[in-house]
Amino acid sequence: MHVKTKLSDLAILGGIRLFNTPKPIGQLSAPSAKKYISLVHECFQSGRLSDNGPLVVQLEKELSRYHDTKHCIALANAGMALMMLMQIFSGGRQGKVIVPAFSYRGLPHFSMWAKQQPIFCDVDSHTHTLDPDSLRKTINKDVTSILAVTNFNSTGNIESICKIGEENAVPVFFDSVYGIGSTYKGRPLGSFGKAEVFSLHATKLLNGFEGGYITTNDGGLADILTSQRDNNTQPDGLEYIIGLNARLNELHAAMALLNLSNLDETIEQNRIRYGAYQKAIEPIPGLELIPYPDHEKSNYQMAVIEVSQPWPLSRNQTHALLHAEGADISPYYSPPLYKWSAQPLVESNTGNFPVADMLADRYLQLPVGELITKNDIHNIGQLLAFAAIHGKRISSLLKEKGIK
Amino acid sequence: MHVKTKLSDLAILGGIRLFNTPKPIGQLSAPSAKKYISLVHECFQSGRLSDNGPLVVQLEKELSRYHDTKHCIALANAGMALMMLMQIFSGGRQGKVIVPAFSYRGLPHFSMWAKQQPIFCDVDSHTHTLDPDSLRKTINKDVTSILAVTNFNSTGNIESICKIGEENAVPVFFDSVYGIGSTYKGRPLGSFGKAEVFSLHATKLLNGFEGGYITTNDGGLADILTSQRDNNTQPDGLEYIIGLNARLNELHAAMALLNLSNLDETIEQNRIRYGAYQKAIEPIPGLELIPYPDHEKSNYQMAVIEVSQPWPLSRNQTHALLHAEGADISPYYSPPLYKWSAQPLVESNTGNFPVADMLADRYLQLPVGELITKNDIHNIGQLLAFAAIHGKRISSLLKEKGIK
Repeated sequence: MHVKTKLSDLAILGGIRLFNTPKPIGQLSAPSAKKYISLVHECFQSGRLSDNGPLVVQLEKELSRYHDTKHCIALANAGMALMMLMQIFSGGRQGKVIVPAFSYRGLPHFSMWAKQQPIFCDVDSHTHTLDPDSLRKTINKDVTSILAVTNFNSTGNIESICKIGEENAVPVFFDSVYGIGSTYKGRPLGSFGKAEVFSLHATKLLNGFEGGYITTNDGGLADILTSQRDNNTQPDGLEYIIGLNARLNELHAAMALLNLSNLDETIEQNRIRYGAYQKAIEPIPGLELIPYPDHEKSNYQMAVIEVSQPWPLSRNQTHALLHAEGADISPYYSPPLYKWSAQPLVESNTGNFPVADMLADRYLQLPVGELITKNDIHNIGQLLAFAAIHGKRISSLLKEKGIK
Repeated sequence: MHVKTKLSDLAILGGIRLFNTPKPIGQLSAPSAKKYISLVHECFQSGRLSDNGPLVVQLEKELSRYHDTKHCIALANAGMALMMLMQIFSGGRQGKVIVPAFSYRGLPHFSMWAKQQPIFCDVDSHTHTLDPDSLRKTINKDVTSILAVTNFNSTGNIESICKIGEENAVPVFFDSVYGIGSTYKGRPLGSFGKAEVFSLHATKLLNGFEGGYITTNDGGLADILTSQRDNNTQPDGLEYIIGLNARLNELHAAMALLNLSNLDETIEQNRIRYGAYQKAIEPIPGLELIPYPDHEKSNYQMAVIEVSQPWPLSRNQTHALLHAEGADISPYYSPPLYKWSAQPLVESNTGNFPVADMLADRYLQLPVGELITKNDIHNIGQLLAFAAIHGKRISSLLKEKGIK
């Protein structure tokens, strides 16, 4: 490692990078190439590589068991899963869908494909998920569904949110992309609300290179989704259902199956890395690692720090500092979703979302996943400790470079 | 083979099936498992398996060259390609899109995702593609785009259709899924209209297990599509563009690249099989193999027969006869698209489409692709010759079984 002893050792001030290869924020778990290749070879020989083949069926069965749900529908990706659910819940009407003002940037796009205008709703400052009080104020007669997002650090108050949905006869469903392996009141995510959506993208906990799936206990909904993903079929009497090609391919199911069989170990490795971050960050004044809940299971997938006084750098300066050292990191939902510029034209994206604004300035994701070693984490800790000491001077130098 | 010498030899009347394993109507070309596995192994080692990796870039380059177009945008599937184009051409407005009344069943679904009501238009009795006269009568001020389909046996009158689009300032684009390797006036498909859409599904000529792509000479359109497929990005000033996750994965690009390098040979094998069908079908009165054009290149991907007097069986009876023998075949666009029951709710699917009606009762796809041998084709010919002789009796026996 390159110990930083003077300011000019910092990469952003001309020093040598801490990391020669960029250190990512994605999980990127993979089985041995040999295991994967062997499974692909079997597929290849069987001649069944598309259209809901045997590995997709097996994956759906194993994921149902993992999430303790009756049904799992594997799909080409999680974005299509959200589009399909919003479309079904709308009953073919134009309408509105409630989404958190602080969340993933794709959500307004998916809702627009389903002819639903997104309405933003503020989030809770601790859970970062839909705030039940804001939700009560936001819901109106045009709302066809509520998309709650379960975050990495908290599932949010699922009971309250589902209750509000029931009282208003509006279906609630969950984007649980960060919730594989997490529990709410001791029960694994997967069976809350009308349905939950998960991702199999390579950067997510369960890597299928690409892909997604929906879990639900509602057999009728599962049947509709199974028809809908097949493009040109449609359940009887449901003429409002629009089909699309959303099938998962065997090549992706093969990868997801191998990673699923190793998922407990992946989570354990995440927990160990998270422990290393706790040790590295704890001594540094003004930096706090977002905690995981004590009484629930978590997947320890992400390491996100909160930046506040007396830490001498702004969040953006801290981002620039680490990025220059080769940490391929991002702020965490910043700007907040409702202010994100690359939105489709949305009538409803006005309003005040003070919690979303506040959260969007505070957080920074740190490198995580299989490509990060304990030593990498130690080095990040050393770098941040050095920055804590020389912070005022670093901040001025960065301001001169236009980084505020 | 099982030569049929008496009626009870026919599988539909209790005899032994001609084919032990079902004989498909898809291309199903594949390189050696070894070649594919070796390329997947390289991907796996590089760690780049998603999000527009190097093989996707290479595939786009090679496909641009193959189609002689400036741009190629690889996508997760051809259905998404159609959704994206209709969405872009609509400028975010609700509107209508013209589609052939005799075509693929997914088209109305894709247009509904893009907030466009499909309007059906009758087809030409020889080319089976949009009939220019009907198109002139169908077009109106609500139409945001014209989706012309180039069929396996004919590209249709591309010049006339594009001219009508220009005169009405409505973009024309092509579903050319069956047109890889075909030419119009000597020029390869790929650069006609505003854009053309192709498929990489396993059953299509160029197998990527799944996938699709768009070709265009319009650099501005290519830039928009490249942003749009990435879900949460959007070109400046085009707030009406709705993004979706439509990226092609490296695993599919690897397969498509290997098959592309062998495409000329695949087409040559199709031509040889088609020649065998010509020989087998020609002597049988009332059966005619749909011809490929003399003065254009074709890919000989499909073998479709027309059934008419004096052939003694109806199209549906002929289908049932062959299906029972293990030919996993389909009628050809029957019922015609505009009458297909699994449609989303479409206001505009009324009207008279006499050519579509007439075509939909006449045709039957025969088994094709890599899994069909010359001997299989010879056997199908023998079976049909036997049916021609004993047709009246077979027809009565099938009618007794309710097959008309």
